[in-house]
Amino acid sequence: MAEEPRIDPWGTVEVKDYKRLMEVFGIKPINTILPLLEKAGMKPSAYMRRGIIFGHRDMDRVLEAKIRGEPVAVLTGFMPSGRFHFGHKLTVDQLIYYQNSGFKIFVALADAEAVIVRRIPRREAIRIAVEEYVANMIALGLDPDKTEFYFQTNRGAPYYRLLQLFAGKVTAAEMEAIYGDLTPAKVMAALTQAADILHVELEEYGGYKHVVVPVGADQDPHLRLTRDLADRMGGIISLERPASTYHKMQRGLDGVKMSSSRPDSTIFLTDPLNEAKRKLMKALTGGRATAEEQRRLGGVPESCTVYDMHMYHLMGDEELAKIYRDCRSGAMLCGECKLLAWSKMKDLLERHQQRLEEAREVAWSIVDAPRF
Amino acid sequence: MAEEPRIDPWGTVEVKDYKRLMEVFGIKPINTILPLLEKAGMKPSAYMRRGIIFGHRDMDRVLEAKIRGEPVAVLTGFMPSGRFHFGHKLTVDQLIYYQNSGFKIFVALADAEAVIVRRIPRREAIRIAVEEYVANMIALGLDPDKTEFYFQTNRGAPYYRLLQLFAGKVTAAEMEAIYGDLTPAKVMAALTQAADILHVELEEYGGYKHVVVPVGADQDPHLRLTRDLADRMGGIISLERPASTYHKMQRGLDGVKMSSSRPDSTIFLTDPLNEAKRKLMKALTGGRATAEEQRRLGGVPESCTVYDMHMYHLMGDEELAKIYRDCRSGAMLCGECKLLAWSKMKDLLERHQQRLEEAREVAWSIVDAPRF
Repeated sequence: MAEEPRIDPWGTVEVKDYKRLMEVFGIKPINTILPLLEKAGMKPSAYMRRGIIFGHRDMDRVLEAKIRGEPVAVLTGFMPSGRFHFGHKLTVDQLIYYQNSGFKIFVALADAEAVIVRRIPRREAIRIAVEEYVANMIALGLDPDKTEFYFQTNRGAPYYRLLQLFAGKVTAAEMEAIYGDLTPAKVMAALTQAADILHVELEEYGGYKHVVVPVGADQDPHLRLTRDLADRMGGIISLERPASTYHKMQRGLDGVKMSSSRPDSTIFLTDPLNEAKRKLMKALTGGRATAEEQRRLGGVPESCTVYDMHMYHLMGDEELAKIYRDCRSGAMLCGECKLLAWSKMKDLLERHQQRLEEAREVAWSIVDAPRF
Repeated sequence: MAEEPRIDPWGTVEVKDYKRLMEVFGIKPINTILPLLEKAGMKPSAYMRRGIIFGHRDMDRVLEAKIRGEPVAVLTGFMPSGRFHFGHKLTVDQLIYYQNSGFKIFVALADAEAVIVRRIPRREAIRIAVEEYVANMIALGLDPDKTEFYFQTNRGAPYYRLLQLFAGKVTAAEMEAIYGDLTPAKVMAALTQAADILHVELEEYGGYKHVVVPVGADQDPHLRLTRDLADRMGGIISLERPASTYHKMQRGLDGVKMSSSRPDSTIFLTDPLNEAKRKLMKALTGGRATAEEQRRLGGVPESCTVYDMHMYHLMGDEELAKIYRDCRSGAMLCGECKLLAWSKMKDLLERHQQRLEEAREVAWSIVDAPRF
């Protein structure tokens, strides 16, 4: 029997073996929802078409509900512990896709987690949440009037009631199997995430809705715990398991995990243009040792972080296919390809940064920031 | 060096060695506050005079604040997991004493703990909290207009914010040293108790007040954790350490720990009179093997659970002193003493039970019971 792949949401291990994850944990290929998407009047997103969103659990149930005209929602959370970068944009693009299709959007600002797990100073976590996260999401196009942003430490009694009641419905052994050694901080963070996902089903937060949570594969342990908690709340309150979709995390520009703590591994959406260009130009590519060799053998887009940028953020399907072919064939070398990426990214960043100042004002006006 | 006495708030171990507890953990004798009590215009309560309340920590600070005219408060919590008995009355009498001296009273209805630690069905915990605890407290004379009763699962964002932030300020090792092996339920219950005690200091709950928590000695680990958490919240919010007083728990009528789960070990304030009398009449006394021997040697009030009832609940100082002398001298035997206790208790229960029906209605009208 195969050993269970252990994935740790607070670790830094990259999950490379998505296929195995799907077999062991019952995540289904994303293409199994295509017929239902169509029935629901939705087109597959670019991330779905490109296999970046590669799997789901129970998304068929959510789409069937939508087809029946029942309320549907998306929840995600951001830990306000650094600057907003292209890795975050991957999730926000998904929110916008669902928002345009009539899903209600909930965004948890994980200030509790930032403080208790990452030890970010409290006021700084609140400022980052509003000025970096909420503002950049609005500037990217998320409609603030149709999005409910909230702080984990400021969400009202029914939300916290879940958190408290969940504590009696999970054993130490179960949490240790997922998170390693227990600490009070980990217990609270894990239960808080479960409350984030499930509270949107409550009457007090606008009534029952079918909820989907778009996550990276490394977040699946949270989802499984949340599903179990939903199952175990019978007799107290009726909660349904959330659906989830799984995406491949974008690599950093150095080919390893993208992280705010290594600023050269990623481009922040607030980077000055010359700074962004500098990072992109020295990004790890799938090029060969020499130009001659590359013309002869072609490049390897699968190993190229610039191709990642094309694929995740910059290009339409046809342009992307052409870049892939021209790289593979050796017709286009890395320098040219980077400049092509930069021309698109420059437009994107300029447009985004123009919107950002106003978005910051909107952000402060719509969030209910906690006093302490 | 002496080994630390280990006391476990969720265990059933009785703390017999109060003196040692005071030496090791720095609890001061209650008589050290007598001059300040007088300055504050308060007389020592019967429980203080009789050594039932035997110690305190920082109560001098609270009394000094009261003398300066600053706001003072008492907080206690009840786990709604059984019927209200004479052991609970011990705490409520203290609340009434403080209320009559101008302290604001806060009562936590520990529905979260009842559900997550004791696994009481949720709706039952809420009913018990209101009909057993709040109603009996009001019938005993606690003024509902001057008392803030609240459910732990229904207390507003600033309270829960403390709970979340506390989670990052205590290590697993510290909690394990106090509570043994950690479970999510214990983590949540311990942090919830700390939030109960400290949230009354917040602006959002009526502004800063000096708070004292009257507890049995077995609850001191909670108090020490809470004090540490208050110390560690600097930089986020300013919290002061709570004061506390310590009382000797009343033994059950069988001489061991009083408990709702052994109904013959205690008299409930809602017991039918014949039932209450039956329990009292067969209570363990400090009597001798024969009447003759008792007349000769006298009884031992220190070993007598009926004398406990006299001392904790039934008699004024002079009557109590006479009972003690008459028992010691052999002038009064156990049968007579029990009937004397019963005559007082009968009046107390009759009066109490007459008030109870109305008190139940008041109870439901003043609490904000959670929906689930």
